[in-house]
Amino acid sequence: MRFLPTALVLSCLAAAAGLPAEVSAQSSRPAVSSIADAYGEAARRLIDAALADSAAYKRLTQLTDRFGHRFSGSDNLERALDWILAEMESDGLENVRGEPVLVPHWVRGSESLELISPRRQALPMLGLGGSVGTSPEGVRAELLVVRSFDELEARSHEAKGKIVLLNAPFVSYGETVTYRVQGAIAAARAGAVASLIRSVTPFSLRTPHTGQMLYDPWAPQIPHAAIAVEDAEMLQRMQERGERIEVLLKMDAQTLPDVWSRNVVGEIVGWQHPEQVVVTGGHIDSWDLGTGAMDDGGGSVAAWEAVRLMRDLGLRPRRTVRVVLWTNEENGLRGALAYRDAHLDELDDHILAIESDAGVFKPRGFGFTGSAAAYEIVREIGTLLEAIGADDVRRGGGGADIGPIMRKGVPGMGLRVDGDKYFWYHHTEADTIDKLDPREMAECVAAMAVMAYVVADLPERLPR
Amino acid sequence: MRFLPTALVLSCLAAAAGLPAEVSAQSSRPAVSSIADAYGEAARRLIDAALADSAAYKRLTQLTDRFGHRFSGSDNLERALDWILAEMESDGLENVRGEPVLVPHWVRGSESLELISPRRQALPMLGLGGSVGTSPEGVRAELLVVRSFDELEARSHEAKGKIVLLNAPFVSYGETVTYRVQGAIAAARAGAVASLIRSVTPFSLRTPHTGQMLYDPWAPQIPHAAIAVEDAEMLQRMQERGERIEVLLKMDAQTLPDVWSRNVVGEIVGWQHPEQVVVTGGHIDSWDLGTGAMDDGGGSVAAWEAVRLMRDLGLRPRRTVRVVLWTNEENGLRGALAYRDAHLDELDDHILAIESDAGVFKPRGFGFTGSAAAYEIVREIGTLLEAIGADDVRRGGGGADIGPIMRKGVPGMGLRVDGDKYFWYHHTEADTIDKLDPREMAECVAAMAVMAYVVADLPERLPR
Repeated sequence: MRFLPTALVLSCLAAAAGLPAEVSAQSSRPAVSSIADAYGEAARRLIDAALADSAAYKRLTQLTDRFGHRFSGSDNLERALDWILAEMESDGLENVRGEPVLVPHWVRGSESLELISPRRQALPMLGLGGSVGTSPEGVRAELLVVRSFDELEARSHEAKGKIVLLNAPFVSYGETVTYRVQGAIAAARAGAVASLIRSVTPFSLRTPHTGQMLYDPWAPQIPHAAIAVEDAEMLQRMQERGERIEVLLKMDAQTLPDVWSRNVVGEIVGWQHPEQVVVTGGHIDSWDLGTGAMDDGGGSVAAWEAVRLMRDLGLRPRRTVRVVLWTNEENGLRGALAYRDAHLDELDDHILAIESDAGVFKPRGFGFTGSAAAYEIVREIGTLLEAIGADDVRRGGGGADIGPIMRKGVPGMGLRVDGDKYFWYHHTEADTIDKLDPREMAECVAAMAVMAYVVADLPERLPR
Repeated sequence: MRFLPTALVLSCLAAAAGLPAEVSAQSSRPAVSSIADAYGEAARRLIDAALADSAAYKRLTQLTDRFGHRFSGSDNLERALDWILAEMESDGLENVRGEPVLVPHWVRGSESLELISPRRQALPMLGLGGSVGTSPEGVRAELLVVRSFDELEARSHEAKGKIVLLNAPFVSYGETVTYRVQGAIAAARAGAVASLIRSVTPFSLRTPHTGQMLYDPWAPQIPHAAIAVEDAEMLQRMQERGERIEVLLKMDAQTLPDVWSRNVVGEIVGWQHPEQVVVTGGHIDSWDLGTGAMDDGGGSVAAWEAVRLMRDLGLRPRRTVRVVLWTNEENGLRGALAYRDAHLDELDDHILAIESDAGVFKPRGFGFTGSAAAYEIVREIGTLLEAIGADDVRRGGGGADIGPIMRKGVPGMGLRVDGDKYFWYHHTEADTIDKLDPREMAECVAAMAVMAYVVADLPERLPR
């Protein structure tokens, strides 16, 4: 990492010259002494424009109403991408294109879980992404409930031939999601014929949550599904009372051959350093239920709208600002990997990548991963967002889609929001537009716009 | 109504004599000056016993885990009643019995709603109780969305041959439920072929809510179902954008011949006035989804446990305390009507009826319907519940199951609780034990026990 003292960067700002007519905000000012001074007016214009209406919310509403979910491999997704490409063109973005990505094509099919003993009852469930299916007659077996991987290991002699339910209470997403991702591996190693997890959520209205899971090449592939918190706890109690529990799991899930999808890209080309790029985006794919309004239609549209606002306001920065709507984040990350590979030669000129994938709730600032010198700069840019309370730029942050290019050295940044209820809706049927607020979403647009624009326009490139 | 001044009642208390050995709490005191003095120790004993453990919550857990929902006409319900009768016997309650009630037998069958145009998508739904079904191929028709009965009337010329969606936002349950109950009548009168409502709830995770509905003998019977708030709003937006909306509704619902169920009754017979009765209870039936833990397994078990505690503590009151678990509140109120009819000759000696059907959340007090003189007395009894914050006894209140006997002159009372989230779970799959708290439920037991015991034991009967 190279370090560049903040003072040096700031002195460079004072030397800024040759601003194009479009960037009138700064050019009419005297020699500037800080980023806040230099970009105060541009920031105000972007914020005012973002908050002037509910354009972003309306666009997201249209996207979600019109196409429904946008799951990798679905027609929904590709038709949504066609629409976005056309809209970006009509917005006047430049170099609008779909960059091809080969994505997995997992299909859920019909699925069900029935409690057979001690009494019969249908249990709401969702197969987990990538799971194999069952035979048409299903897997009928006794159930073993465990609270943790440790307990599964301790009771592995009881697991053979059974269906294992991993009933791990929600601690944090990062911790508890391990049961979703790794649960089938652990259960298969213990000899289970299928595995269930308690949905990864702190709140439930009998709501199953789907999500991606993995197999281990050295363990059998067994069907893996999520049930509601309520039922996981009920089954736990039944086991604790010594009742014999039997369930019947049916899943038609299968993985079809990969299909082509696209990362959607649109730009405002930099007037001075067109080859230098600030990337801002979210992932445009969703799970196959709900409409992916929060995860991550909102982040995608916020990033897109941020760039559209620059265009509408005539704010063309020194460097290129590129909105990227990655495909297939949810069950493959193939869009992120394809972007990295397609732009491998350009990554040294990727100045910053900003992702929004935590829901477009009330924004609080950003999390930044990069050098200390760069952090000082982006933190100062953050002060331009005080008016909307989004000025808290912290160390550490990024996003799944920018992860692959961050690992190649590109500084990364994630939009930070009030996420209290994010995991109530995450990967469920309830991820719909009504969970978001037009004003909060507009503030996210403002935050993304100001950060992306200023970093792209700084006289000196953000140090690595 | 006869009015009896509080002072007179209190003077009667001082004259209380001949207390049986079981009621040692009061008998060891000097001449009493108030209800609070006379019953302070008994109240403390009941409260302490209720809060000593999670017995009520455990009993409710067992009920709900073991039998699932308890819908009228189901085997589940009758097996649950058998179990309760046996448990009440082993608790030592007296005159334990099931009083026969003929109940409706509506069966949901399989059901689905699919959006066909402008795009295809399955929409979560629940048929409403009592609705007719569709033909096997379903009803496929254009959709008309309205916000209110007024709008339906104004646009009735557009409704003919269509499916009408009544998308009325939640104002209060009492107000908004009209659309569920009367929606099919209004839609049929306008010529609609089926009707849908937005579920009656202030919060949704794409959660449909069922409930009872009515037909008008002078209007055609059309299928009537509830959809999630999220989808109702989406369909509203589609209509506002001028899109043609078409849906396919399939419902196998049918009403089978009435079947026998039971009101479950158990007592502690009064030592002085066995013919005078204080009734306390809830309804033991539920809808056919979830496990009816909140509505109203909780109220039923709380009332039952209140009486069991009196029995366990040897607190036999002057009058009979009778727990009644009414059947078929949800879709017929037949249990309440049958109770009234079976006990018509005894209603003059029904001193008070106390119902818990608002969820056994944190109790705050009671709502009382009766004379001013009686109100003064029950309000004073309420002060005995200060320790658990359930001392706020207000005017007005009762319950659906005690409604028929209240209309015959029996003073009525409903347990008041913190009900913020009641309608999040109401009539959904999410009405499960985990929504309740053991401590709060124990406090409900305490409140019911103290109120029922003291009213049953007062030297003078509660004035009408």
